[in-house]
Amino acid sequence: MALHIFIPDSLLEETPDPKIRTYKVGQIARAAAIFGVEHIWIYKAGGKDGKFIKLILEYAETPQYLRKALFPIRKELKYVGVIPPLRTPHHKLKGRPALGEIREGIIIKKGKRLYADIGLDELAIVEGSGEGRMTFKIVSVKPLKVVSAKPVEYWGYRVHLTNKTLAKTLKKARLDLAIATSRKGEDVRKVKLPPLEGEIGFVFGSPRKGVMEILRDFNEDYPFDLILNTIPNQKTKTVRTEEAVLATLAVFNFIRRD
Amino acid sequence: MALHIFIPDSLLEETPDPKIRTYKVGQIARAAAIFGVEHIWIYKAGGKDGKFIKLILEYAETPQYLRKALFPIRKELKYVGVIPPLRTPHHKLKGRPALGEIREGIIIKKGKRLYADIGLDELAIVEGSGEGRMTFKIVSVKPLKVVSAKPVEYWGYRVHLTNKTLAKTLKKARLDLAIATSRKGEDVRKVKLPPLEGEIGFVFGSPRKGVMEILRDFNEDYPFDLILNTIPNQKTKTVRTEEAVLATLAVFNFIRRD
Repeated sequence: MALHIFIPDSLLEETPDPKIRTYKVGQIARAAAIFGVEHIWIYKAGGKDGKFIKLILEYAETPQYLRKALFPIRKELKYVGVIPPLRTPHHKLKGRPALGEIREGIIIKKGKRLYADIGLDELAIVEGSGEGRMTFKIVSVKPLKVVSAKPVEYWGYRVHLTNKTLAKTLKKARLDLAIATSRKGEDVRKVKLPPLEGEIGFVFGSPRKGVMEILRDFNEDYPFDLILNTIPNQKTKTVRTEEAVLATLAVFNFIRRD
Repeated sequence: MALHIFIPDSLLEETPDPKIRTYKVGQIARAAAIFGVEHIWIYKAGGKDGKFIKLILEYAETPQYLRKALFPIRKELKYVGVIPPLRTPHHKLKGRPALGEIREGIIIKKGKRLYADIGLDELAIVEGSGEGRMTFKIVSVKPLKVVSAKPVEYWGYRVHLTNKTLAKTLKKARLDLAIATSRKGEDVRKVKLPPLEGEIGFVFGSPRKGVMEILRDFNEDYPFDLILNTIPNQKTKTVRTEEAVLATLAVFNFIRRD
């Protein structure tokens, strides 16, 4: 099972303060990481912040020791200090290298030789080829050598800024189960849920507009498998996107039995 | 059923930025309001922010039109503009007065006569006595008259800063069901829950310490009815208090069937 969430590029339309904007995107990053979301999709909903949201989400997802190399200083990153660290398995601390350990790293070329910065005191010799950020396994400690590898545990999320409307973004994601969240949806406590398998996507609206309204705005329609109210009997008139993301993922984490 | 949450006065121990501190307490306020929490208890856990947390929680809970009268300008309130409005039933907009309508207000004395500011264009004549902030029902529109009344729907929360340790705070709250949240607790999906009735309290730890550790620090013990992990299989090393509050309330909102 792989979780996807879909958030609008208008996520920050009611948040003018640059520090709070950064913090709020950081909250989405945290919610995604806590519940092991693998893909965050940013869809076009009339907002202007798609690039900023992507930047902050990717910054938050990147292990601390790789940030300097991957994110040159720029004004949009001014407030990233307020984002709480994700502390996921792939955000490793320094420590001593261990044989078989998997670490995130970045390729560094020295002449014809390839090295990787994997967040340790020394660079690792890379066996094989590659470029940019990669996942490595330590195959020798002395000398320190790594090969490209696949993660074996939750290893962060990928961010997709599609510049496409919601229905088109959903098509691109090729979900097995597409769930829209809506205050007007069916009570999640009363609906019979299909088995939670394959690629599962949760779609969230913006601060001002629900999912269905956003679809209508763009003359779109989408055959959701379910339209769910994941916060039945809410006592506030609205639930903010970042609140809905955390609450919905918490509820589905409870429902899933694996 | 009435919900209580218990948060430590060390909630902000890892948050130095004053704007983010305010925002974070605002998140607790929002989570409480979304799920209809009636009591927020702040217990002593070695932190220094009990008063600040109480102030911000109470500010957030107060209808906008009463804030000026109830909260004189002070530096701790400098960043309250970043708190999203609760938009609960008792945060009413201006509009026209309606017979039978219940509104939150504040008593204003003019000579021997009592009036109430209930957030409308004119003050209301108060039938009966009272002082400070009260809940009123409109019994006449022309002239505008109100009497003291009881709310009939969710009407915000009360904040209790006990200056007592957790076990003592819990005793004071006289709960029917006391649930500690802990990463090391029983998986909420696997435990048999008692009926959710009466006064139910959820206890949360601090950014650095879990509930059990905080009790131990003060040489205390408490006979919790349940110690629950409400976020089984979390992928991050820690879950922040404000995240745990929202997630736990979301899960129990799902579990409750009323």
